Amino acid sequence: MARYLNYPVELLDRFCMEAFGRFGFTEEESRIITDVLLLSDLYGIESHGMQRLVRYHKCIEKGMIKVEAKPSVVFETPVSAVIDGNDGMGQLISHFAMNKAIEKAQKSGMGIVTVRNSNHFGIAGYYAKMACDKGLIGLACTNSEAIMVPTFGRMAMIGSNPIACCAPAEPYPFFFDASTCVVTRGKLEMYNKMGKPLPHGWALDKNGHDSTDAADVLKNIVAKNGGGIVPLGGSTETLGSHKGYGWGMVCELFSSILSMGMTSEKCMQGTKGGICHGFMAIDPAIFGSPEDIKAHFSAYLETLRESPKADGQDRIYTHGEKEHFAMEDRKKNGINVNENTVREMIDMAEYLHMDYKAYFGDFKAGETKMFSGNY
Amino acid sequence: MARYLNYPVELLDRFCMEAFGRFGFTEEESRIITDVLLLSDLYGIESHGMQRLVRYHKCIEKGMIKVEAKPSVVFETPVSAVIDGNDGMGQLISHFAMNKAIEKAQKSGMGIVTVRNSNHFGIAGYYAKMACDKGLIGLACTNSEAIMVPTFGRMAMIGSNPIACCAPAEPYPFFFDASTCVVTRGKLEMYNKMGKPLPHGWALDKNGHDSTDAADVLKNIVAKNGGGIVPLGGSTETLGSHKGYGWGMVCELFSSILSMGMTSEKCMQGTKGGICHGFMAIDPAIFGSPEDIKAHFSAYLETLRESPKADGQDRIYTHGEKEHFAMEDRKKNGINVNENTVREMIDMAEYLHMDYKAYFGDFKAGETKMFSGNY
Repeated sequence: MARYLNYPVELLDRFCMEAFGRFGFTEEESRIITDVLLLSDLYGIESHGMQRLVRYHKCIEKGMIKVEAKPSVVFETPVSAVIDGNDGMGQLISHFAMNKAIEKAQKSGMGIVTVRNSNHFGIAGYYAKMACDKGLIGLACTNSEAIMVPTFGRMAMIGSNPIACCAPAEPYPFFFDASTCVVTRGKLEMYNKMGKPLPHGWALDKNGHDSTDAADVLKNIVAKNGGGIVPLGGSTETLGSHKGYGWGMVCELFSSILSMGMTSEKCMQGTKGGICHGFMAIDPAIFGSPEDIKAHFSAYLETLRESPKADGQDRIYTHGEKEHFAMEDRKKNGINVNENTVREMIDMAEYLHMDYKAYFGDFKAGETKMFSGNY
Repeated sequence: MARYLNYPVELLDRFCMEAFGRFGFTEEESRIITDVLLLSDLYGIESHGMQRLVRYHKCIEKGMIKVEAKPSVVFETPVSAVIDGNDGMGQLISHFAMNKAIEKAQKSGMGIVTVRNSNHFGIAGYYAKMACDKGLIGLACTNSEAIMVPTFGRMAMIGSNPIACCAPAEPYPFFFDASTCVVTRGKLEMYNKMGKPLPHGWALDKNGHDSTDAADVLKNIVAKNGGGIVPLGGSTETLGSHKGYGWGMVCELFSSILSMGMTSEKCMQGTKGGICHGFMAIDPAIFGSPEDIKAHFSAYLETLRESPKADGQDRIYTHGEKEHFAMEDRKKNGINVNENTVREMIDMAEYLHMDYKAYFGDFKAGETKMFSGNY
């Protein structure tokens, strides 16, 4: 059973702001990075929040993420842009890129921006939501180091390749953010930290057989020994493996291919990240009345939520609903952080000469408030 | 074991041309409809080719598809259009709509078109390919009558909601066309015609439990008794049911929502089809050199095909490859048609006062060339 520690959102916010400031980011930059990471934890996407700090720490430490780098626009039209991230922090490059897509959508109706030479950007949904917050439809995707094994293959050749779509609706926006694998690598990292076996049908060992050993799968992915995570739809065509694999390829098309960047199987090697993203914003006004469209969508979402439930289920969720309630809960009750993640945060704090006890108390002596969770 | 009859492509082409002409379509219109249906059979997507003629026959007969109807543009900007299909033939409306998206992409870089009040349009991939044939990236999607049960639900509330993406590549284009359910209704229809039990994990009975009885599931879908097909990812969140369900919703957003048309749960009732589509064309030149982008994509696709194979597999396919070879094979060796489908074609021919023997010989006496298939 993994142990979780509960911290107020404000404490984690202050911790991240100080840490990224010490890495050399400006306050405005630290604000963006922190917001992306915290939204993930607030939304209940534990895999991409504090849990990921260790990766940013390590990538900055080894020079894969260049703190001073600024994105540059290498190609542009009234509806599009290609951005070179110049190996900077993925969140900052992506925030810049999505803002550009939004500006173009506000002027031309639609904007599409692709990015090369970036780094991990956190949750795709954050950027899709940026457009939605302005009344637009937002789409965002990214490739990553290869973790997805194509149908009938045994080597990871495609990233987790999430695609997110966010659109205005009441009482909460439609917010869909999903890797095109059956699960993300972050989920495997969480199971590894929790010491739990993986469910069947998630991952393959280096010989291409089903594996429940998170540590072994993660090790093999890093060492490029073979194996990895299966596409959404599994490893056989019967349940649609080729479909998840196809979505992974669509993500690759709109990130690495159209930006002429690195495809997933080449990313994150040595000190080169090379991650690529794609962003799109669409103004619903190019189809008529945004208010009518929003009302039409909201009514359909409500019809789905109200439709008959399966035996043993009392609720049908629409996308963004769980995230909405998770955020309400966490703002009030704090965020639960896995103790291994807290250890990583303390390591990072020590690396940055921060006073970690100001945030976590005497965590190492085990005196902090603590409870058992089973996420 | 289902029996299949083998016919040359030209014979099926002539048959469709005569049949649609007799329904009242012009030669140009019949050409488009026939091309859409035949591409499906040529590509090996048996579920959406000749197998579907019976549905068009029945929908025209009962007035759901209005032969004389022409699509009208109800809203337009330089990058977008909303089209009212006026209850016409889905293939004709969609051909018109995708051509409009292509024209806009050629002028403005991108074009997006949504359609309401249409009918079934065949395979989504046909329209995505129209853009690709002009050197553009094409996307197409459609809702349909409700067949997909949302995660934790027991009533079909969402269509099969396929999304297709086609993009230039060598030696064959990237062609991805997949319903967002685990399988299409057409697949269930095929299993029903073949008298085979469904694989586990495809469909739910009216109480929301796994079912292998194609006839029962199809009957319940039509009668709206409950049950239907599960999303890509199954019926539980563990294997990603919420992801397939989310993709189904994205399809709905870009078809019925943005066009202010009928959402899937309202489609195909009484004599109203109400099907909605979405089309997008993107000129790769808005990102730089189309030739460089195509070469970059082609190289990645080749890398995937050449990557190590799983135990017992000797080939990794990229999307569009199977379709390419299926077409080569069928153009040379003819198309295999399920005998039940041939019976439906003969019924239709008799309804249209066609001389079916000119096409199928004395099929009913069983004298034609015949073989057993196991598709």
